[in-house]
Amino acid sequence: MSVGRLRRQAVAIFRAAVAAADPAAAVERQLRPIDFSSYRDIYVVGAGKAGASMAAAAERVLSKRVTEGLVNVKYGHVAKLKRIEVNECGHPVPDGAGVAGAERIAEIAARAGRGDLVLCLISGGASALLPLPGAPVTLAEKQEATRLLLACGADIHEFNAVRKHLSRIKGGQLARLAWPARVEALLLSDVIGDDPAVIGSGPTAPDASTFADVARILEKYRITRRMPAGVLRRLRQGLRGEVEETPKPGDRTFRDVRNSIVGSNRLALKAAARRARQLGLRTLVLSSEVQGETREIARMHAAIAREIARSGNPLKPPACVISGGETTVTLRGKGLGGRNQEFVLAAAMDICGLAETVVFSAGTDGTDGPTDAAGAVADGSTLARNPNAAAYLDNNDSYHYFQALGDLVKTGPTLTNVMDVRLILVGG
Amino acid sequence: MSVGRLRRQAVAIFRAAVAAADPAAAVERQLRPIDFSSYRDIYVVGAGKAGASMAAAAERVLSKRVTEGLVNVKYGHVAKLKRIEVNECGHPVPDGAGVAGAERIAEIAARAGRGDLVLCLISGGASALLPLPGAPVTLAEKQEATRLLLACGADIHEFNAVRKHLSRIKGGQLARLAWPARVEALLLSDVIGDDPAVIGSGPTAPDASTFADVARILEKYRITRRMPAGVLRRLRQGLRGEVEETPKPGDRTFRDVRNSIVGSNRLALKAAARRARQLGLRTLVLSSEVQGETREIARMHAAIAREIARSGNPLKPPACVISGGETTVTLRGKGLGGRNQEFVLAAAMDICGLAETVVFSAGTDGTDGPTDAAGAVADGSTLARNPNAAAYLDNNDSYHYFQALGDLVKTGPTLTNVMDVRLILVGG
Repeated sequence: MSVGRLRRQAVAIFRAAVAAADPAAAVERQLRPIDFSSYRDIYVVGAGKAGASMAAAAERVLSKRVTEGLVNVKYGHVAKLKRIEVNECGHPVPDGAGVAGAERIAEIAARAGRGDLVLCLISGGASALLPLPGAPVTLAEKQEATRLLLACGADIHEFNAVRKHLSRIKGGQLARLAWPARVEALLLSDVIGDDPAVIGSGPTAPDASTFADVARILEKYRITRRMPAGVLRRLRQGLRGEVEETPKPGDRTFRDVRNSIVGSNRLALKAAARRARQLGLRTLVLSSEVQGETREIARMHAAIAREIARSGNPLKPPACVISGGETTVTLRGKGLGGRNQEFVLAAAMDICGLAETVVFSAGTDGTDGPTDAAGAVADGSTLARNPNAAAYLDNNDSYHYFQALGDLVKTGPTLTNVMDVRLILVGG
Repeated sequence: MSVGRLRRQAVAIFRAAVAAADPAAAVERQLRPIDFSSYRDIYVVGAGKAGASMAAAAERVLSKRVTEGLVNVKYGHVAKLKRIEVNECGHPVPDGAGVAGAERIAEIAARAGRGDLVLCLISGGASALLPLPGAPVTLAEKQEATRLLLACGADIHEFNAVRKHLSRIKGGQLARLAWPARVEALLLSDVIGDDPAVIGSGPTAPDASTFADVARILEKYRITRRMPAGVLRRLRQGLRGEVEETPKPGDRTFRDVRNSIVGSNRLALKAAARRARQLGLRTLVLSSEVQGETREIARMHAAIAREIARSGNPLKPPACVISGGETTVTLRGKGLGGRNQEFVLAAAMDICGLAETVVFSAGTDGTDGPTDAAGAVADGSTLARNPNAAAYLDNNDSYHYFQALGDLVKTGPTLTNVMDVRLILVGG
């Protein structure tokens, strides 16, 4: 098998992964089998970068059954719909348009009653696109609290605990507003592990964290005193029981709530594996939950490529190993690149000289870092074409390394995001 | 399946890997099928930490057929033999005893002629245990050159190129001394990739590097002028052709030379996989060539463990994923630990809460860093038993974390070394 053919196969496998994460197709797939005839009113709400196409798909399925609807989307990510309003707002920094939209979404949910359905469409970016600070916190105060947490290195769970308790809609509170209506939440996951409580800060999922946890987290990082006044007042009110807690697991709120992951990295990798097998490749999905420092994760992938070539483990060639998730890059240099391009550059160094071995990585959203590429592709002869790889890697300049070789992968925006897809292909 | 049972299975699988790397058994396995009757004289030479037990095994097979023999071993790593002399010398810092032994090994090889066999036994540590500086370089000068290279961050290939050209026995030169005798080299590999030119700096393998390469490497790191006088004189002589080059691939030297990997990480993992399958586990060997920063490699392994538990990929439970090679640790803290213990600590953080999931890592030599443990073992409830893992990891203090939990793996010295074995076990 030629390396050129392996490269084309990698692109085809990646495209299959992206197609499986298409938000509109995912929503249609989920909704088509449902019988909506017994519901009185059907409300559609939601937020996220894929909000417009998810809403359009919902309209296609539900048509005139939609009583009213509103989704918050990023500026420019619009679609012309008949019954569901598409509200453009700020992302990644939330703005007043976002608050106004979230307020109306809360009102719609509150209006829904017994016998009604609230269809909730959540995708990447929903956290910033559904900003509804709980009184007396202002949007600016909430952002300042977030900034302080970020600076002190809080982890994602701590972050979410705080965020949910400063909000009036997150942490299951949208579902509580909708109660006793039935809630169908369709989630397009862009987070590792696909936890509904984490995706978009879980507006329709139970929240196990408490105001007491928030107080402990602020103490742990010694930032209690630096918190804005409104945040501290809400925290005190919460601790005294004057502000209602987020609904907990087992709460009646969730009796008629269903959270469904309609698109995710795991589902995308599954589709990629199906395509790879169709192409005649022995195929293995390693993990959809890969995280860690990009260049080290790349070395591990390259070690697997070498093992395949040398011993036929974990697969005999022709073989395809697939992984997903999202790695991080610790910036040291001043070059241009993204985690996918850096992954391929670091892996290329470790597969140097291997015949019929291809490494591919790209973001399913079609963008990688601040570049116009989705990722890159390399093979065992890439280093020979430009041996200076280490210098480019040191400078985090993977974009220019692959640009000169013509090995950038460009797809344009795909209008979805389920993190990254990495491929190792070994022919023979 | 209980976590306790999975932990016991991990230990059993590790023991199978170590047993497969037993140097004496490996030498016997390789020599038993060979017909030695047609050889005139049989000489046994060698160096390495496993030298004594490899030589003892050779004596068991060859018995009185051994004409003469000498192996250089580390102080204390001795065995009482009848025909092969065991010479103790300095490691990791070479000493005069090592040079004296290497000199006699060169003489033995030179004495062997047509119709004779030189059996060469190489194991971990052979590079330091076979020091024979080429004139006019002194041992002290060679060590100084090595120290300078280390300090400037030269890679293993650059290192070996320099080392071989300052030596009179490495880089295939032992094989050239033995020519036209036949050479059987049995190599117990402790390096990633098992390249005979890298193991013990390749005394019986062709060397593609040249004096001109050495000059370029010293220039690249701007250390030419800081090199000791003897090193510079040898380099100038080599560049003028006054010192013979190391024998190159295709040289007649290697016509009757056979380099055989008798023990390696790859072979150990194969034995581990066999044992895991006997225990009823679906089993996958990921790679024997894993390198990179330990804690990041651990995250990747944990991601695979989570995927197995959540989606049945790459294996359905009960499953065992095996990897080998050797990672590195960038020291940041002042604690006690080793790469295997640190691997298990970092992985434990990422498998927290997973039922029936065990992570294991240990060095096949029975030691891990400057500790009395070979490695450690953890499961999904380890973090609950001591949630303070991040602090221990930050301080590189994995030993004390696992010591308090009783989760260190201790085997004592195994008298072999084929790097590390890592295991992920998921029951169910």
